Amino acid sequence: MVSRRGFLSSAAGALIGAGAVSRAALAQIPEAPLAESPATEPPPAPPNGRPYQPVVTLNGWSLPWRLKDNVKEFHLIAEAVEREIAPGMTAHLWGYNGQSPGPTIECVEGDRVRIFVTNKLPEYTTVHWHGMRLPHGMDGVAGLTQPPIQPGETWVYEFEMSRAGSYMYHPHADEMLQMAMGMMGLIVVHPQDPAQRAVDRDFAFIMNAYDVEPGSYTPRVNTMTDFNTWTWNSRAFPGISPLIARLGDRIRIRIGNLTMTNHPIHLHGHSFEVTGTDGGWVPESARWPEVTIDLGVGQMRDIEFVADAPGDWAFHCHKTHHTMNAMGHEVPTYIGVDFEEAAQKLRRLIPQYMVMGDRGGAHMAAMQMQLPENTLPMMTGRGPYGPIGMGGMFTVFKVREDQARGDYDDPGWYTPPPGTMAYRSET
Amino acid sequence: MVSRRGFLSSAAGALIGAGAVSRAALAQIPEAPLAESPATEPPPAPPNGRPYQPVVTLNGWSLPWRLKDNVKEFHLIAEAVEREIAPGMTAHLWGYNGQSPGPTIECVEGDRVRIFVTNKLPEYTTVHWHGMRLPHGMDGVAGLTQPPIQPGETWVYEFEMSRAGSYMYHPHADEMLQMAMGMMGLIVVHPQDPAQRAVDRDFAFIMNAYDVEPGSYTPRVNTMTDFNTWTWNSRAFPGISPLIARLGDRIRIRIGNLTMTNHPIHLHGHSFEVTGTDGGWVPESARWPEVTIDLGVGQMRDIEFVADAPGDWAFHCHKTHHTMNAMGHEVPTYIGVDFEEAAQKLRRLIPQYMVMGDRGGAHMAAMQMQLPENTLPMMTGRGPYGPIGMGGMFTVFKVREDQARGDYDDPGWYTPPPGTMAYRSET
Amino acid sequence: MVSRRGFLSSAAGALIGAGAVSRAALAQIPEAPLAESPATEPPPAPPNGRPYQPVVTLNGWSLPWRLKDNVKEFHLIAEAVEREIAPGMTAHLWGYNGQSPGPTIECVEGDRVRIFVTNKLPEYTTVHWHGMRLPHGMDGVAGLTQPPIQPGETWVYEFEMSRAGSYMYHPHADEMLQMAMGMMGLIVVHPQDPAQRAVDRDFAFIMNAYDVEPGSYTPRVNTMTDFNTWTWNSRAFPGISPLIARLGDRIRIRIGNLTMTNHPIHLHGHSFEVTGTDGGWVPESARWPEVTIDLGVGQMRDIEFVADAPGDWAFHCHKTHHTMNAMGHEVPTYIGVDFEEAAQKLRRLIPQYMVMGDRGGAHMAAMQMQLPENTLPMMTGRGPYGPIGMGGMFTVFKVREDQARGDYDDPGWYTPPPGTMAYRSET
Repeated sequence: MVSRRGFLSSAAGALIGAGAVSRAALAQIPEAPLAESPATEPPPAPPNGRPYQPVVTLNGWSLPWRLKDNVKEFHLIAEAVEREIAPGMTAHLWGYNGQSPGPTIECVEGDRVRIFVTNKLPEYTTVHWHGMRLPHGMDGVAGLTQPPIQPGETWVYEFEMSRAGSYMYHPHADEMLQMAMGMMGLIVVHPQDPAQRAVDRDFAFIMNAYDVEPGSYTPRVNTMTDFNTWTWNSRAFPGISPLIARLGDRIRIRIGNLTMTNHPIHLHGHSFEVTGTDGGWVPESARWPEVTIDLGVGQMRDIEFVADAPGDWAFHCHKTHHTMNAMGHEVPTYIGVDFEEAAQKLRRLIPQYMVMGDRGGAHMAAMQMQLPENTLPMMTGRGPYGPIGMGGMFTVFKVREDQARGDYDDPGWYTPPPGTMAYRSET
Repeated sequence: MVSRRGFLSSAAGALIGAGAVSRAALAQIPEAPLAESPATEPPPAPPNGRPYQPVVTLNGWSLPWRLKDNVKEFHLIAEAVEREIAPGMTAHLWGYNGQSPGPTIECVEGDRVRIFVTNKLPEYTTVHWHGMRLPHGMDGVAGLTQPPIQPGETWVYEFEMSRAGSYMYHPHADEMLQMAMGMMGLIVVHPQDPAQRAVDRDFAFIMNAYDVEPGSYTPRVNTMTDFNTWTWNSRAFPGISPLIARLGDRIRIRIGNLTMTNHPIHLHGHSFEVTGTDGGWVPESARWPEVTIDLGVGQMRDIEFVADAPGDWAFHCHKTHHTMNAMGHEVPTYIGVDFEEAAQKLRRLIPQYMVMGDRGGAHMAAMQMQLPENTLPMMTGRGPYGPIGMGGMFTVFKVREDQARGDYDDPGWYTPPPGTMAYRSET
Repeated sequence: MVSRRGFLSSAAGALIGAGAVSRAALAQIPEAPLAESPATEPPPAPPNGRPYQPVVTLNGWSLPWRLKDNVKEFHLIAEAVEREIAPGMTAHLWGYNGQSPGPTIECVEGDRVRIFVTNKLPEYTTVHWHGMRLPHGMDGVAGLTQPPIQPGETWVYEFEMSRAGSYMYHPHADEMLQMAMGMMGLIVVHPQDPAQRAVDRDFAFIMNAYDVEPGSYTPRVNTMTDFNTWTWNSRAFPGISPLIARLGDRIRIRIGNLTMTNHPIHLHGHSFEVTGTDGGWVPESARWPEVTIDLGVGQMRDIEFVADAPGDWAFHCHKTHHTMNAMGHEVPTYIGVDFEEAAQKLRRLIPQYMVMGDRGGAHMAAMQMQLPENTLPMMTGRGPYGPIGMGGMFTVFKVREDQARGDYDDPGWYTPPPGTMAYRSET
């Protein structure tokens, strides 16, 4: 799913178009791979440098590097992208290397990195390495630590990845707009000793949010609270990959929040601890047992636990609007009231809208309403027992006894042993 | 205040109406007590099973069980209810066993429970046991772990209450709507040894929020941020019971959040620690001293402290809009500006509205404005020194030297000793 | 910048106007200094009482006291004020002693204080000492612990500052309106032993928010979520003072939140720990390393760290709308869509508004648009490398090797050593 474009075909094309880069400079720039699909790419083991156990970026991938004089060279291309939010909806976003979010940058504590950033956007940008300890001049704040990167330019950031942990990258130039358009990515710095804080499965994603009017493709960028597309790595349920584990695996999930509000992330069937932040490891003495961890904006949290209960476990934001897709907010109540006025409003939006009486909203999960183009149903997704009726920030954590270590193939739905399921009383 | 209906009069009536339950099955279903008032019911000691010190559910009650073959059998009935939010306002909600929230389920670590759930709603539902460690098939996620419970059906959940702590139950089917309508309740699992983490007073409530237009009865269910009725256990000040304590008592308050936003809960005159979450006990080494604890959505927090200061202490959410009742948001500023336009807008809503000049808003707390039907004043409640001018998520924690242990009668207002009160400077 | 008015000229004038205070009483009231500018006043060492190292209140000052019979007497005047939010915008607020927020009250653990509060507002008020442990009658809750302080009255609060730490004061009478108008201030209680938890630099501020329509001066006081002026100590970038430090200094920043939402405070180039709350000191075993700390409403947090990286480091709220000034929310997207309709809407607001094409929003940071009177640009501020393009809750933490201990003069922009700055690839 990841293709590699050499500098002549793509990055260099843009650069030459900008007329500002010499042939000698071009020869210095590493290739810029790009991703063509939103599929989850279990990353390969590192081809060189210190060994580490790679992370699984949900619906994402890790950026290859070129090792040159013991420096890992990466190449990010900031550009307009088309991102499938879930089957049936694509958003016109800004991202990096073909997708939003951009690829995960993985390296090892102590690595020296050189990150080339080519700007193919119509306006300037920068990259800020959120949470990293680095020299002032590499911090990526437009106006304060560097001039902005103009369209067509390629800039170079070079610093040491000094501390193991979970970090993010995002613009610090016109950043409200550029983050509202999807510009962000993950950085994972592995410890030098792979045995240190080792886990069996290591997942990562960033929470983001968009305001895409039903029937349109481009987010509104000035929204402060009324977002309608709540996503993990720019994907909404049922488009978010499940997290696959073997019974007994130790699990780490690295979660970042680049929306405009808190997200309480809730895992069913297990309790967990926060073991790290973008500030460092959390000492054992300071950890709390949790089933729901509330992430503030701009925070990263590593959660860890043992997958000790087989089954399919819901994993989601606990704000109920954030597990809905668009159209949730305008729909008026039609419980026990005259709903004709409401239905008329809806018909303006959806001509075939049917009055559903005063029976609540559950039927919407099962119905196939006529939707505007490029619009997900508000409540959607099917499980083994019928409609799940969710959307947005929702996926499933799947724990199986027979999942092979290292196997990320979706095992399908769980079949509980006899006598372990809720049942109708007449049986 | 709690009556007991046998299955013939009520639960069975609904079930027979559904035409789906055999006589034999009915005989298996325990009775379904229901609550007829929003009064706080200090719960009786457990009649059988292991002993424990029961919790006081603010404006709520604990569900009796039937012990059968060493299994505690409970019966929840999901149904439409009328809940008094505070004297002067009743909301048409959905809840369990006559009220919203439903009754608290109390048991002891290691107890095996069998919980019957009868659906008397007009749409399907399920019950998810939030925070509990249990088999996949008992997790209550519609579509994913079970088919939904259709109207008229009774389903059975059966599992072991494996860990002491504070939990919640709520639907995981059409859950945005069903929680916006009030469907939720508390679960308290006591430790096997009553001396473990014992306190003198143990209180519990869930925070919830509704969007009820002034003059109406039924919440709008698609609201994401602009709620106007901020409640604890579906009660608003001055309808929330005070918390009564004796000087020197060790206090625990278990608080859950099932609204759509964070609530910073602030206690006057004391500092406290979070000692438990729905994930488990917080180790002593990890606790912070606090006067305000911010609860994310879907989180439970047990706070503990010693009631070491006699008096009447405000206990409330610190978001000032959340200690107001409805009508707060549309009222325009009339400080130092031409307020005639504002007054005209208000008169459209409230014909008798008087222009109050440019003197601020405090007079609204004292005035008796003509309100729409079934609408609480925005600022209300009286204390010993005049209007308190609050609403919503506000109550009083009352600490008295002479309160008998175990006595929950409201002692009235506190009289401070001479020389311990603020005073006008001319005295 | 701070002038001292004796009681005859100012406080007494108001009091005599109220006709309620005897000559003998007036003689008891200490003078009421007031601040005439929003400049940061590095406070002088205490002239009497126990020694302590004073805090630097960002864009604020500390209130002098009169020592009388071993009691520290302070005098707060609640009054309407004009506060410069940043050069180019002044808001008509309510505050204390000439500014909003009011002056910081500093004292030492164990000090007995007597705080006179004169009400020169057009409506009643009280003062609640947020987080303090004190007698019920001094808690300042109108109706519950005292009658409200009527316009023209002076009331006296008297209690012991029993615990070292960071606290706030604000009204507990018509408090939604009065806090939305800017009434709040800081209290810092220093430990008796100045060596205890000593730091080299100690800063403090409160986060607040206003809803001031572009072109107007007075906040709307009923706003719940849609604020447009996000401030620290009622100042917005570029009006917020920088924080100045010497390389190697141990830094404490005391931050309070009296807005209506969470603020994730993010510091570049350093990680830090929360070492105290308004509930007390956080034990070392319980601390987390952080780069972003999410403050709930009504919370205070002391963060501490060593300034170990020279440079100019962004320090800001990570919600991107909160680092914008007004006008952010109504501006429609003009990326890849027909922007003529949007431009027409803007032209109604700003006649000279130019269509900026589909190139994003960065150009707005550089443009000099014609703005309504008394309105800050949405994105503003210049650094050494061009426009910073920020607003609201943003300032710079400046760390210099050659900053003298105790020197708070702004050292200007940082010049990085050669080879430590991001660079264009053609060089």
